[in-house]
This record gives sequence, C-alpha cells and structure tokens, in this order.
Amino acid sequence: MESPKNFDLVLFGATGDLAMRKLLPALYHAHAAGRLHPLGRILGASRSRLTRAGFVAKAEQQAKPDDADPNVWASFAERLDYHPLDMDDERDFAALAAKIHGKTDSESTVFYLSTAPKFFTQACRSLAAHGLNGANARVVLEKPLGTDLESCRLINDGVAQYFQEHQTLRIDHYLGKSGLQNLLALRFGNSLFEPLWNNRHIRSVQITLAETLGVEERGEFYDTIGALRDMVQNHIIQILCLTAMERPQSLSAGHLRDAKLQLIRSLRPLDPERDAVFGQYAFSDGLKGYTQEHKVPAASRTETYAALCARIDTPRWEGVPFYLRTGKRLARRSAEIVIGFRPLSDGLFPTLLPNRLVISLQAEDETVRLRLNVKTPDGANHTVPAEACFDTRSGRRPSAYETLLLEAIAGRAALFNRRDELEAAWAWLAPALTFLRQHPRPPHPYPAGSSGPAAAERLLAQGDTWFEGD
Amino acid sequence: MESPKNFDLVLFGATGDLAMRKLLPALYHAHAAGRLHPLGRILGASRSRLTRAGFVAKAEQQAKPDDADPNVWASFAERLDYHPLDMDDERDFAALAAKIHGKTDSESTVFYLSTAPKFFTQACRSLAAHGLNGANARVVLEKPLGTDLESCRLINDGVAQYFQEHQTLRIDHYLGKSGLQNLLALRFGNSLFEPLWNNRHIRSVQITLAETLGVEERGEFYDTIGALRDMVQNHIIQILCLTAMERPQSLSAGHLRDAKLQLIRSLRPLDPERDAVFGQYAFSDGLKGYTQEHKVPAASRTETYAALCARIDTPRWEGVPFYLRTGKRLARRSAEIVIGFRPLSDGLFPTLLPNRLVISLQAEDETVRLRLNVKTPDGANHTVPAEACFDTRSGRRPSAYETLLLEAIAGRAALFNRRDELEAAWAWLAPALTFLRQHPRPPHPYPAGSSGPAAAERLLAQGDTWFEGD
Repeated sequence: MESPKNFDLVLFGATGDLAMRKLLPALYHAHAAGRLHPLGRILGASRSRLTRAGFVAKAEQQAKPDDADPNVWASFAERLDYHPLDMDDERDFAALAAKIHGKTDSESTVFYLSTAPKFFTQACRSLAAHGLNGANARVVLEKPLGTDLESCRLINDGVAQYFQEHQTLRIDHYLGKSGLQNLLALRFGNSLFEPLWNNRHIRSVQITLAETLGVEERGEFYDTIGALRDMVQNHIIQILCLTAMERPQSLSAGHLRDAKLQLIRSLRPLDPERDAVFGQYAFSDGLKGYTQEHKVPAASRTETYAALCARIDTPRWEGVPFYLRTGKRLARRSAEIVIGFRPLSDGLFPTLLPNRLVISLQAEDETVRLRLNVKTPDGANHTVPAEACFDTRSGRRPSAYETLLLEAIAGRAALFNRRDELEAAWAWLAPALTFLRQHPRPPHPYPAGSSGPAAAERLLAQGDTWFEGD
Repeated sequence: MESPKNFDLVLFGATGDLAMRKLLPALYHAHAAGRLHPLGRILGASRSRLTRAGFVAKAEQQAKPDDADPNVWASFAERLDYHPLDMDDERDFAALAAKIHGKTDSESTVFYLSTAPKFFTQACRSLAAHGLNGANARVVLEKPLGTDLESCRLINDGVAQYFQEHQTLRIDHYLGKSGLQNLLALRFGNSLFEPLWNNRHIRSVQITLAETLGVEERGEFYDTIGALRDMVQNHIIQILCLTAMERPQSLSAGHLRDAKLQLIRSLRPLDPERDAVFGQYAFSDGLKGYTQEHKVPAASRTETYAALCARIDTPRWEGVPFYLRTGKRLARRSAEIVIGFRPLSDGLFPTLLPNRLVISLQAEDETVRLRLNVKTPDGANHTVPAEACFDTRSGRRPSAYETLLLEAIAGRAALFNRRDELEAAWAWLAPALTFLRQHPRPPHPYPAGSSGPAAAERLLAQGDTWFEGD
C-alpha cells in the first residue's frame, strides 16, 4: 500500500443528505482505520452560513456512525472545517482558494461536487478562475450526469474546459463496492474461470438490481428519471462491463476503462420492441402503486422496472444472452450477477442442474456462491446440487464511498467513469429512451411486491428463467 | 432406484474380524434403511461349529452398532442364519447347497469370501461342484488378491474355472466410498470441471492416503506386505484411475472398467530409482519405530511409506506429475486428492496462490474444497485465498461396505475390480517390487509422527510441495 497523501477534500453540498449519510461516515471509517494522512483536512462547503462549530455539531448529529468511538470521532472532527459557499459568489471561491493555497504541504486537493449537475460547469469555472485546477486537483462529479447523450455531453464539455479528463472523477458508487471489485479478481486472479468465461461454457448471464422499496419520498424526482436512467445507464452497464469485457492489459485507469469502453461499443444496438420490457408497480396487498405515491402524477408512464436482453457482438459472447433487470417494489432485494454455465449434454449423470456462479454485491451479503453437482449417497447414478459460498467478508470491508474517496484523494481514476464510457452507454440506451418517450402504451403494470411484469418472460431464451434466489 | 432383489448372502469367515466389524454392521444399516429385500437371508459360514443362536448372540455382541434400535436389530437378526463350514468337507458344501436351493424365490446369491486367498479357488470349486455358480450367483473376493502379478493371476485363473468374470466381484472398499464415487460426479456431472481437467489447466495432482497409526497388532502380517502392496496397488491406483481416466462411454461396469484399464496401461513404466521413495518409521518422541513393533523382525526392510511420481502418457496429461503417497505413523491422517491448477502467468493480480481443489475421502470429513482468489478489501490490487467447502454429507451416507454389499446383491459389477485392471496394476508396480526386494539399502527412516522421509521431496517438480492440509 502506498502511504496516504496529505490532502484537502472539499465537499460541496456538505450539509446535504449524501454528505451526511454516506460521505462523512465513510471518511470517519477511513480515519479510524488509519487510512487518511494525519494532516488531511475535510472542508464542508455549502450555502448555509454555518460556523465550523455548527458544521461539526451537525456532522456529529447526522453523520457519526452509531458504533463510533467517541475519542476517535473527536480526533476525526478535528479534520473538519466549514466554508460557506454560494456558487454565484466569487468572493466565496476566493476565500476558499486562499484557505487551500494556505496549506502549502498539500499533495492532493479533491473537490467533491455533491450538488445538482447544473452547477458542475459553473463550479469548475470558478475553481479554475482561482487557480484551484492544478495538477494535484481532482473534481468528483456525483450522478446524475445528464439524462441522455446530449445533456451528458454538455456537462462533460463544460467541465472539460477547466479540468483535464484524468482530473475528472465521475462517480458510480457501484464501482467502489468490494463485491464488484472482486469480480475482477475472480475473473483474472483465478486460472479456473478465465478458460470458462465464454460462450462455449456459459449459456447466459443475468444481472439484477432489485429493490423491495418503492420510490418513498423521492417520487417527484424519480418521475423525471425512471429505472433506465436511475439504474441501467450507470450501475447495470458498469456491472455488465466488468462481467463481460475482455482482459484489460493492466488494471490501470487507462487500460481498465479502454476494456469497458470496448465492451459497451460491442453491444448490439437495442431494438426496444424486441429486447426490452418496462413495468410500473401497481397497488397490491396494501402496497401503494407507483402513481399513488407522494407527488407522482396519476397518469405517469415512468418505468419503475426495466428488463433488457443485451447481446454482445464479440467472438467470446456470440449467442449468449445477457439479461439485465432492475426495479422497485419487487419481491426480493438483490444485487447480483448470475453466471449460468451450459448444461451437460452427455448424460453420464441424469437429472442435474447446470453449474451456476452467483456473485452477490449486497453489502450485507457479499458472497460468491458456486453450485456444483455431487453424487447422491444412495448408490444410484444421480446427482444433487451442492452450493458452496466463498465468504469474501474477512476483515474490515470499507464502504463503496470510503474506497472511492480514498481513490480520489490518491488521484487514481480507475474506479471512476471516463467520459467516453458514459457517453457510449447513453448512446446504446438511446433507442430505449426514445421508445419510452414515444410509445403509445404505458409500461406493463406489475403488482407491488411481485417479481415484476410477466411480460419480461418473453425476453428469455428457451430454457432460461429469471433467477429469484433459489 | 430398482427394487431390491430377494437374496441369499453367504459370508465365509462370518465369525472373523471383517464380518463382525464391517460387513454385519453394514448389512444392519442397509436393513434399517429398507434397502434389503424383506425375504433376503444372511448366512454366516465358518469353521466354528456354532448354532444359529450362538451366531446371532455373537453378532449382537460384536457387530451391533452402538446406536442400533433394539427392535430394528431384532428384525435384522431374523435374517441371520448360521452354517458350519469346513473348506475341506464337501458335506458342508452339500448342506449349504441344499439350504440355498431350498429358497426357490431367491433372485441373487452372493458368496462373500472373507477368508485367506489360498482358499479362494478351492471354495469356488466346491461351490461349483454343488451347483452354486449359476447365473444369479456372485462371488466376492476380499483382498489381498495376490502379492504380485504372478500370484494374482493364479488366483484369477483358479476362480475363473468356476465363475465367469462378470460373476467375480473383487472388492476394493475404496470404490464404495461415497467421496470417491463423488469424484466421478464432479468430473462428469459438472460442465465446470471437464474443460479444465487436463495439462493446460492442471499443473500437478497429489493422492495421499496417510495414517497416524503404526502397524499396531498387525506387524507380523504387515511385514510380509508393505505399503506398496497394502495401499498403492489397490486403493491408490484405483483413486488415480478415477481421477485421471478419460471419460467412460457410460457408467456401466464394462465401460467404467475399460476406462480405468486404459489409464493404467497409459502409465509410464516406473523407474524406481528416479520415481519412488520408500520409508520406514523410526522411534521418535516415545512412538515406537516399525522394527520395535510386536512381531516385526528387528532387521526388517519392509516399507511403511511409499511415494511415487507417476506419469501418464496421454495427450491429456503430458507433463503433469501425479504424486502418489501413503504411509503409516505420519503426522496427519488423510485420504485426499489434491488437484493443483496452474498458476496464472499474466500478473494482473500479484501475490496469488493458484486454484486448488481438494477432495477428501475420509468418511468423517468427506468434502470437496475449492480454493479461489478473491480481492483484498483494502483497495489494493491484491488477492487473498478464499476456500469454500461443498458439503456432500447431506442425508444418510452409507458406508463403503454397505454400498458394495448392495451392489453385489444387485449383481452389479461396476464398483468392483476387473481382472485385467488388477493385473495391469501389478504389472506397473513390478519394477518397484523388484527394486524393494533387490535394493541393497533399507528404506529411508523417518521419525514416527513426522510427514515422512525428507527424501520424498526430490520427487517433486520445481514449485510443487507435498500437501499437508494447509
């Protein structure tokens, strides 16, 4: 491990939900684990005209983990500072610059823009205007990064005027999940899997991000977004990339993201009529339907469920369907990749289930499960499935945000999205977005708490079934 | 499952150790599990002039499992009968024939010769003389089946005068172990392993049968046998066959044994000077040395340890060493197959251990363990090994003898050794047996309770190590 860099981390939107619920707790854990440079500073910045003491008190109230050691929290709080900042007020930026330039031993400055995307370009311009875009500076952009290819490009173009690509860290917190990082280790750190990772041995792949919750209080926002933009364009496509991409030359930011980009560009263009099924949860068994949720229009056609069958036009994956699925108010919460191996055709042992590898990305259930067939002990030539679980939870496991914040401080871009990847993902999804906008029929209703619309069955090749955790 | 056949099972040597400790308990368990035909009879036969009641009482005392249900045992005991039998007395055979022919609804007659091999031919002759070698008759031969190729052939030739090959069931109780049967299911019931089961993906294979006990009270007998004959010629070569053989056309007795025979015949001829290391345990730490054991000659050169490096001259295994090892008074008791996969050469993830599959055949630890590499959660590109265990112990697991007795009653030969296999195994070992007889130096001494003679290291290819259960 490299020794950590002395840093300034500026959190824009520091009093907001993400900062309080995710970022500050992640930083606390990194601090407690000794992974932050002792002189590193964390500057909260937001429009609220708080004092430092006010910010520290708010953090203690809203961000301190329940199990935090009071002494460790106290030493963490010493890193915290607060800087009132109005995006439109250049004097606030000037003062911020003075504060940052005053720390002459800093090796890394990270501006974490946990703000509305419309401020991204403006904030970057102001940072640059005050000399805060030097070689050691990084800017972290929280999603959403646009709502389609066009708007994504606009943001990227804007930011690119002031920060170089390698300084621009587009966050997708799934890339910080250790379960997903583990996927690379599984594929490329085991001689067992690489020879099997192709269409000769794999029959189909499923990627599912399923929630049991509905939109809760976020209905008004969610209604402008929908499942494709909320989950597929970013998280699911990233998971797909890491599952299916060719072997990168190295794990450097450049090579890794080249491999992901290559994969996205190998996706067969979507024909939404054939390849996609959209759904919207409906009232069932006392659970509200989507259109009954707070501030959701009664006639909303926003999809709360999306299932796609993606095809990858490479020799490795010719003929292998990749089933992608996400939704709200589903029966079972899950974040998992299911690699379905081909069944045996030779019939030495009858009645077997094909081998299956299930990689769960849920923080509380981060496991790799492999299903083999073993012999029934009854002397007959039959087999029964035996599933073994590779527990990858040994030791402390940092949260996705902790990992990503530390990567940003270290100036490493490998776990962030490069511009071309994101734009390629938007481009691939464009036909589906158009379809949703123009299609005369609303999404398929599905009962809240069910496993989604029955219509999704039609995406499956013969013999495949949606994985429901059996 | 086929319904069980109505049978007569005649146990020659019924008052002996094997019958009391293994065979009758196995039959009891089969009975308790409802796997014996309700009218099936078990006839104890031996020179002792016992009454039926005397035999039942002896069985109750010596063979009844500790956890047996008294009612179930009582119903089992009703199957038991006794028949005094002197091998030299044809009247005893005539009476036996009368008893067996009197059971007109019998579908299967099994003669289990748990006697000294010198009686095998004689017993078969007498059985045949009294018409007991009909189509439904099977003869089970307990080991040892000779002490070299010549003596094995003599027994086989003798028995073959009276029983056809498919009626002759040569027992190797390892073939009844569910862990070993599982090996076939693993190899041929999973699409995951077959593509990897060759020299492109496997670097080396180890088969170890290690005991912590010494020769105990068996020194006088053992001294005429040694480790090669006691363990390698039968159990280890059988395990090697099932591990390395080509895919059989079916699991029928014919195809399975064809595949095993083919494998033995593909073994490169042994050069004992180069390929073998022999050892004999020596006094250490209060544990007797072999030559201090009861009735072992002080100058004995009998090997209590043997390690071989076998090579298989097939395209599948070109370049892959198969390390075979057995011994008494070793540090750790084990019966296991270790498949060592090739290390990765590409270096995307540094410091990894190669994948490894460990199949344990110990009844009390019958597991399949797979070692993968997973990512360290520290954000660095390192991996740590994670081992998962496929527990194959679900449900009741019959003992090896139960399985084999039921197979014999059913008239199935697949789990027994065919004549040609055994003779091929003796032929392959012949140079080692000659070496041991002629070599001027005694076997390498190793401390009792150690992991064997240090000299065994020289059999290993660079980078390989003997597996010690780490």
